[in-house]
Amino acid sequence: MKSEIIAVGSEMLTPFRQDTNSLYITEKLNELGVTIAFKTIVGDRRKDLVNAFRTALGRTDIVIVMGGLGPTEDDLTREAVAETLSLTLRREPAQVAALHARAATWRISMPENNLKQADVIQGATVLTNPNGSAPGQWLDTTFEGFRKLIMLVPGPPHECRALFDLECLPKLRDELPPRAIRTLKAAMIPESQADKILAPIYTEYKDVETTILAHTGDIQLTLMCSKATVAAAKQRVDELAGKMEEALDDWLYSSDGESLEQIVLYYLGLRQATLAVAESCTGGLVAQRVTSVPGSSRSFLGGAVVYSDPLKTSFANVPPELIAQHGAVSAEVASAMAEGIRKRTGATLGVGVTGIAGPTGGTEHKPVGLVYFAVSDAQKTDSFNRTFRGDRDRVRQWAATQALDLIRRKLM
Amino acid sequence: MKSEIIAVGSEMLTPFRQDTNSLYITEKLNELGVTIAFKTIVGDRRKDLVNAFRTALGRTDIVIVMGGLGPTEDDLTREAVAETLSLTLRREPAQVAALHARAATWRISMPENNLKQADVIQGATVLTNPNGSAPGQWLDTTFEGFRKLIMLVPGPPHECRALFDLECLPKLRDELPPRAIRTLKAAMIPESQADKILAPIYTEYKDVETTILAHTGDIQLTLMCSKATVAAAKQRVDELAGKMEEALDDWLYSSDGESLEQIVLYYLGLRQATLAVAESCTGGLVAQRVTSVPGSSRSFLGGAVVYSDPLKTSFANVPPELIAQHGAVSAEVASAMAEGIRKRTGATLGVGVTGIAGPTGGTEHKPVGLVYFAVSDAQKTDSFNRTFRGDRDRVRQWAATQALDLIRRKLM
Repeated sequence: MKSEIIAVGSEMLTPFRQDTNSLYITEKLNELGVTIAFKTIVGDRRKDLVNAFRTALGRTDIVIVMGGLGPTEDDLTREAVAETLSLTLRREPAQVAALHARAATWRISMPENNLKQADVIQGATVLTNPNGSAPGQWLDTTFEGFRKLIMLVPGPPHECRALFDLECLPKLRDELPPRAIRTLKAAMIPESQADKILAPIYTEYKDVETTILAHTGDIQLTLMCSKATVAAAKQRVDELAGKMEEALDDWLYSSDGESLEQIVLYYLGLRQATLAVAESCTGGLVAQRVTSVPGSSRSFLGGAVVYSDPLKTSFANVPPELIAQHGAVSAEVASAMAEGIRKRTGATLGVGVTGIAGPTGGTEHKPVGLVYFAVSDAQKTDSFNRTFRGDRDRVRQWAATQALDLIRRKLM
Repeated sequence: MKSEIIAVGSEMLTPFRQDTNSLYITEKLNELGVTIAFKTIVGDRRKDLVNAFRTALGRTDIVIVMGGLGPTEDDLTREAVAETLSLTLRREPAQVAALHARAATWRISMPENNLKQADVIQGATVLTNPNGSAPGQWLDTTFEGFRKLIMLVPGPPHECRALFDLECLPKLRDELPPRAIRTLKAAMIPESQADKILAPIYTEYKDVETTILAHTGDIQLTLMCSKATVAAAKQRVDELAGKMEEALDDWLYSSDGESLEQIVLYYLGLRQATLAVAESCTGGLVAQRVTSVPGSSRSFLGGAVVYSDPLKTSFANVPPELIAQHGAVSAEVASAMAEGIRKRTGATLGVGVTGIAGPTGGTEHKPVGLVYFAVSDAQKTDSFNRTFRGDRDRVRQWAATQALDLIRRKLM
C-alpha cells in the first residue's frame, strides 16, 4: 500500500517552519508496512489544497492530511477534501454538543466560528482528538474507481500524534499485512566502506528492505520486512541485523535506533562515570548535544568553551608555554585540555577538542578542517587528529560526532 | 510567479531524515519575491518522479528539483525530467572532460558510471557545481503551452546552496520584475503584540507585501514591493520599514536581515567589548550559536557549561552557600554566574543562564520552563526570569534567544 502525507499550512512554506509531524507518522506507518511515496506541503489556499488532494488520491492508496482543521477562516481542509471528492459537509449535532461541553469545561465563551470544527464530510467517521477541540476524520471511499483511505488529523504536534496513535493506527492495522523494522547505527565509518562491508550481506536478504543513510559521521541502517506474521518478519530482520552487527564490529553503536548522545550517556551511567568537555572549535556543540538528552545531568558535569587562549589556561589548565610552543590547534593542547578539564571538574573522563572550523585561519600545515581530539582518564590521555571537508558548519558537526564517538569507544 | 520545490531522495521519506535545503532556497526565493506554493518530497522511483514533475509543472511557473543528480543507479532526476518533457538526454563532451579532470585532481579513478553526471537535457544550460562533481541544469521551456523555468540542483546541502547562490539566483533575478525587499527582525516580542503594533501601519501600504514570521523568540518581517523600477520599489519599502522600525523601537534588532548572533557580535566589536557566558540549562547552546558566526573569536572569549553545582562554583565562582540557600535555579545564582564568569575570564560582559528545561525537574514554585538570566559588567549585575512553554528543545531555544537579546540590550 502506497501512502502520501500532506502537511497543510502556509507557515510551512516559509524558511522558518518545517513539518515535523510527518516524521512521526512515517515511523508509525513504516512499522505497519506502509510505504510513504510522497510528502506534500501546501499552504492554506483552497485551490491549492484541492489540487494537492486530487494529486495524492490519483497516485496513492492512503492519504493522510495534517492540519487545517481549526476554527479560523484559513482552516480549509474539510471543505477542500469534500470538494475534491464531490461530497457534502454536514454539521454534526453530537460534535456541536462536544464543542459546547469543551468550552464550558474551560469556562470560555465559544465564538460561532468554532462550530465549523463540527462539520463532518459525508460518509466520514469522526476521530476523537484527546488533546484539542478539532476532531479528526476517517474516510473509506473511492476515487476514480479505486478504494482510498483518507485520514484528516489536526496540525498541532501533540494533537496530531495522540489522535493518530489513538484512532488511526488501530484502524489501519486492521487493513494491513504484518511487518518488522529495526534500525542499526554506526559512527565515523565512511559510507563507501560501510556499503562495501554490508552489501554482500544484505543483498542475500531480498525479502528485507535495507536503507543506508549517512549524515556527518553517522551511518544509519534501516531493515524492514513484511511477512504473513509479525514473528516471521521479525525473525528475518533479526537474522540480517545479527550478521550486520558482526560485520560492523565496533563501528556499531546502536542496535535499536538510539542516538550517539543517548549511547554515550547510557555507557556513562553503566560505568558510573562522569564526563566534562573542553571545546574550542566546536564552541559548545558537544555539550549542547549531550545536554539535549533529558536526564543528562546525572552523568554530564559540564564543560568549558575555551575559545580564547587565556581561557584554555584558566579553565582547562593548559600551560601558556604549551600553546606558544605548539599552537592552540595541536595534539599537545588537545591533550592538556582533556586532562585539565578532567582534573578541574573531578570528572571520570575529560575530553578536549581544538581545531580550525574555518572559513579562514588555515595554514599550509594546519588547514581548515583540521581538528585535534583528546580523551583523558585517571590512567592516561590519548590524542589524534582528523581533517574534515566542508564548510564551518559541517566541520563543527563532524568534529562533535567524532568527539562523542571517542567518548563511546573509551567507555566500551 | 508561483514556485514548487521538489526534494528527491527516498531517505527523506523515512522517519530519520528531513529535507532542509528547501528552507534555504525558500528564503532566497522569497527575497526575489517568488512565492513557494508547494513543496513535494519524492523517492528515487522513476515513475513517482515523473508524476511529481508533471504535477509541479501543471500548477506552478518555477520548479526547483533538488537531488538525484549523483552517479548511482538511484539518481534518476535527469532521466525523469527529460521523460516528463519528452526531451532527449545527450552526454556532453565538455562535462565528460570536466569529470575526468576532477578525478585526476583528486587522484581517484573514475568509475564508468560517473559519466552519467555529464548527461544534459536537450536545451538545458549546465550550472557549475563549485563543491561537487554533479553539475546542475537550468531549463527555460514550455509545458502544456505555458513557459516554465526548471532548475536541477544537487542534493548535498553544501553543493545545493553554493550552486543555487552562484548560478540560479543571478539567472532568476534577470527573469523577475524589478522589486525591492527588506527584512526587519525583532526579538522576544510576542507575535500578537507585534501584529497589534504593526498592522495599522502596514495595512496602509497595500502595494508592499508584508509577511510576519515568529520562531521561538525571533520575529521576522519581510517587506516586498514590485514596481516599474527598483528605485521606486525601494522607496516604498524603505518608507514602510522606517515607520515599522519606529514602532518596534528597541524590540527591533536588525534592519537588514542579520541574525541576532551577528548583531551581538557587531555591537561587541563596536564597543571593543568581549563576552563570556556561563550556561546551565542551555548546555552550550548560547556559546554554540555565537561561535557559529565566522570570526566570533575576536569578541567571544568562551564560557562554561556549568551543568553540575560544583562546576558552578569552580568555573563561575558561585558560592556553594548561595546554591544551598536559593537553589541552582534562582536569580541569585544566575547573577553570581554572570559576575563569576566575567571576573574569571576578564570579559567585559558576563552572562548567566540557569533554568529547568524539562521534561522533569519542575516544582510548584519553579515549574518546567522557568529560566533565570543575568548580565554583568564592571558597574553592575542585573537579573530577571521568564517562563517558557513547550518541550525541552523549545525551552532551550527560547532561553538561548533571550540570553542573546539580553546581551544586545546591554550593549545598545
